[in-house]
Amino acid sequence: MQNNKKHKNHELVKDWIGLIQVFTCPEDAETRTALVGLMRQILFELHDFLIKNVGITEEISLKILADDFTDTVINRCPEKKLADVVTGVFDHIAPHAVNVASPYFVGHMTAAIPYFMVHLKAIVAALNQNVVKLETSKVVSVLEKQVVAKIHRLIFNLSDEFYAEHVQNTDTSLGSFMEGGTTANLTALWVARNTALRPKDGFSGIEKKGMMAAYKAYDIDRCVVLVSKRAHYSFRKAGGLLGIGNENIIPVDVDGNNKLKIDALENTIAEIKREGRTKIIAVVGIAGTTETGTVDPLKEIAAICARENIHFHTDAAWGGPTLLSDKYKHLLDGIHLADSVTIDGHKQFYMPMGCGMIYFKNPKSLDAISYHANYVNRRGSVDLGIKTLAGSREANSLILDSALKIMGARGYGMLIEHGIELAADFAEEIKQRDMFQLITEPELNILTYRVCPPELREEMKTADPVRFIKINDELNELNRTIQQEQREAGKSFVSRTVLEQENIFPGSPAGKIVVLRSVLMNPLTNIEILKDILDEQEGLYDMWRNGTLGHEKARKDTDRHGME
Amino acid sequence: MQNNKKHKNHELVKDWIGLIQVFTCPEDAETRTALVGLMRQILFELHDFLIKNVGITEEISLKILADDFTDTVINRCPEKKLADVVTGVFDHIAPHAVNVASPYFVGHMTAAIPYFMVHLKAIVAALNQNVVKLETSKVVSVLEKQVVAKIHRLIFNLSDEFYAEHVQNTDTSLGSFMEGGTTANLTALWVARNTALRPKDGFSGIEKKGMMAAYKAYDIDRCVVLVSKRAHYSFRKAGGLLGIGNENIIPVDVDGNNKLKIDALENTIAEIKREGRTKIIAVVGIAGTTETGTVDPLKEIAAICARENIHFHTDAAWGGPTLLSDKYKHLLDGIHLADSVTIDGHKQFYMPMGCGMIYFKNPKSLDAISYHANYVNRRGSVDLGIKTLAGSREANSLILDSALKIMGARGYGMLIEHGIELAADFAEEIKQRDMFQLITEPELNILTYRVCPPELREEMKTADPVRFIKINDELNELNRTIQQEQREAGKSFVSRTVLEQENIFPGSPAGKIVVLRSVLMNPLTNIEILKDILDEQEGLYDMWRNGTLGHEKARKDTDRHGME
Repeated sequence: MQNNKKHKNHELVKDWIGLIQVFTCPEDAETRTALVGLMRQILFELHDFLIKNVGITEEISLKILADDFTDTVINRCPEKKLADVVTGVFDHIAPHAVNVASPYFVGHMTAAIPYFMVHLKAIVAALNQNVVKLETSKVVSVLEKQVVAKIHRLIFNLSDEFYAEHVQNTDTSLGSFMEGGTTANLTALWVARNTALRPKDGFSGIEKKGMMAAYKAYDIDRCVVLVSKRAHYSFRKAGGLLGIGNENIIPVDVDGNNKLKIDALENTIAEIKREGRTKIIAVVGIAGTTETGTVDPLKEIAAICARENIHFHTDAAWGGPTLLSDKYKHLLDGIHLADSVTIDGHKQFYMPMGCGMIYFKNPKSLDAISYHANYVNRRGSVDLGIKTLAGSREANSLILDSALKIMGARGYGMLIEHGIELAADFAEEIKQRDMFQLITEPELNILTYRVCPPELREEMKTADPVRFIKINDELNELNRTIQQEQREAGKSFVSRTVLEQENIFPGSPAGKIVVLRSVLMNPLTNIEILKDILDEQEGLYDMWRNGTLGHEKARKDTDRHGME
Repeated sequence: MQNNKKHKNHELVKDWIGLIQVFTCPEDAETRTALVGLMRQILFELHDFLIKNVGITEEISLKILADDFTDTVINRCPEKKLADVVTGVFDHIAPHAVNVASPYFVGHMTAAIPYFMVHLKAIVAALNQNVVKLETSKVVSVLEKQVVAKIHRLIFNLSDEFYAEHVQNTDTSLGSFMEGGTTANLTALWVARNTALRPKDGFSGIEKKGMMAAYKAYDIDRCVVLVSKRAHYSFRKAGGLLGIGNENIIPVDVDGNNKLKIDALENTIAEIKREGRTKIIAVVGIAGTTETGTVDPLKEIAAICARENIHFHTDAAWGGPTLLSDKYKHLLDGIHLADSVTIDGHKQFYMPMGCGMIYFKNPKSLDAISYHANYVNRRGSVDLGIKTLAGSREANSLILDSALKIMGARGYGMLIEHGIELAADFAEEIKQRDMFQLITEPELNILTYRVCPPELREEMKTADPVRFIKINDELNELNRTIQQEQREAGKSFVSRTVLEQENIFPGSPAGKIVVLRSVLMNPLTNIEILKDILDEQEGLYDMWRNGTLGHEKARKDTDRHGME
């Protein structure tokens, strides 16, 4: 009898009563204390554990690790209680997870989050509202409209009257939360496509009739989107998905600073117009490229788009929150001229995965993708699911709203400033070291460089193209190896990518350059840590020269291939 | 000095030191205790509060509520600390949120979740792994492949050898986690489209070349997808998005039990073939329709698809977990014959929002949508982002894996059985009451019915079509009103939809019928609660007949329109 009444947290869910109990908030103090204790472990012990296990350890290879995850039968009986699951996270997950929160982890856009984010995510889960419709979210839908208006205002800065009219307007939409930047960019191009090929006399629009009918109605053979060569791969994906064809996402040349070349854009547009029978449905500018953190000349792109009547989308998934820094918001000059803007919450808003957002200057733009059903998202309702790719989704807007209140614009501004200034300092440090070559100067808080010993650097300056390419290939192999070895040593992490870069020495030919990429968004990262990382890379280079790195490498058959 | 060292949880983030502190796990016991105390509030007090505030209260209208959410300026300075945010959730969010966890809330597919889900979501946030690539997730990517294989096995039940080969195979994929059922259905049709219009001699495939080029290469004018009239609206959305055109998502007739009619499917296929120049890229069967919970004749559809060489997709977003009940898994007979299957984690796996999943029988199917980039998702890697619509995303697989271990297949099976058997009991209760008419018999755990007073019911049986429609219109208005009034009374909630239904009396004409829809997935809901809900509806009918409901209605100018 006592067993039935008492909520025993340490028992398996073995019968109907046990099952009912996991749906019922426990009344007894003992169980409540046990459940809170588990939260304490998640909040602190997990964090403490990860601090001690920085970086990506390779003590166990991916192949051996994977051998522990091969059972594919779902057990009929419960095998764990919640406490066991938490223990299991400590024993089997955390040791082989990646400590993205480490200040030595400066290779990716996934980083440390403030601890209060875990509380906020727990609130979202505890409320479990579904923002697809008002009937399962009510106030949270209203809140989402408000947060969306706040970020819209940050980007577009329209009039008080505009925001008063639209913030809670059930007929209009200033933007939406979604899974990530990829779906945000997709949504932007979806809207641009549907707007370019909208209903007209005798044609009820591409969304309804499809691509073939649309091309006939508009008497064209092709749609294209023009993007910087440095654009995120999600645009190609969106092109494929939308039926445009991903080869019609046309890369436009960038200059030596990785910025979209305005004359190349003009030439591409002119060429497409000469060819004819092609519609340019959007031009994309980037505010913080994934690889180099570069901001495209947004103002100039906007002027061209306005003249040509083309949708101008800005991918500010990375750089968007720069607008919260009074000191550096000018770096995004012209973003308010965009027709749509992508920003990621899980990047420089320091939110947990996965939170993307899309914003449209015109509050009617999202009408181009609206859908209704009898049982949900009825016409004229506040139901947010009417104008989103997703159906059911979680209330991440609650997290951003709370985070903005806890941090203030100024708090986020300080984080932005720290990153940008630390990147500038790091660039200076790299330039001062003989062993390194800075490949892309930081504009925001991302830079790329490579290990490039002085003797090879000198030789490259005067080498003929054949020899130049040979040395470059050698450097590529060297940098690939050093990045892998450093990652596997488990103390620190920079990422690597390949840039097609010309003029890295005056007049040098274009070539594929393997670069080390550093993303500086963790406030705990400082110049001393970055110097340590460079020191370690210099040490690895010494080993490479002595042939000890090759030996090490041959011994491992791990996930080298997997990570390439 | 002490201030710098001590981590004061009760201070605003007002300077750089405060900012650093929110990224640093507090060392002092006082702050840790405060943070855990907030988690306690989130875990228990929030739940206790919601229990007391069941349903969707309308004490404050949506319009008045929205008036509190109109400020659109982000404060420069921090205005709240975490404790204030939690208090704010209690004061301003929870009272106007929807208590989806209430056993009286039986109208939607968003329901109660076991309390351990909040812990699991907190773990996901605390680890903050990004499953797009191995470098930011490592073991979690490996774990996701395992969980995916477990659910794949549940659906398709292939050989031990098959799962041994594919569970951790980096070249193949058995499925993927994603935001929701909508993206899962979209992914299925995306793969089906790309497979139907794949590369061949002189044509490099639709994904690359686009729809127009594909239609030319395959010498067709149109692609279509055949779906039940009861299919989820996400298929139309996918049709629009993919460039197929949403009017080419062709609804196929259903029978009196809302199941796709096999002869109608055959006729539609034959007709399309006669017309020519059209490719049927997929047929969709549903395992648990959104409105009525019906399962389509999956085996028969599979046989036709096999004969015609068409991709067979099954949308089991709702019904999928029925496979975990030994007693009722036969209701999904034939699902293993599908080429792809959608299942939602946030529905009958009782996970928090938002977790969709897609599964493909053929481990190579997802190759049709693979994307790569220099800095991520390199060829041949384990990077899960290669074959997903999303880029960055959170590690919800960790939640499902843990939940399966805590609940066991048997635990989920008991939940399924409870829902199905309760729905059957509820149907009996409805049939026994003179005031109600059961519109769709439950097959799984969803049923629809309406208030239909005996005198009108008798008259309808013999009424001529004109009179029949007039009475039906009147009943529609009555049921619409009762559903709204009950929702706004805030004690309980059933949803409503409109079904096109014929033969609701022998020989009666087809008509649009407003029905009350009941979704029974909460283990705390029982027949007594459902009787209460019917009693309340009978009471509302009495008020309607006395004219007191109309009065009440006219007085309110709230979100009636908003909810329609």
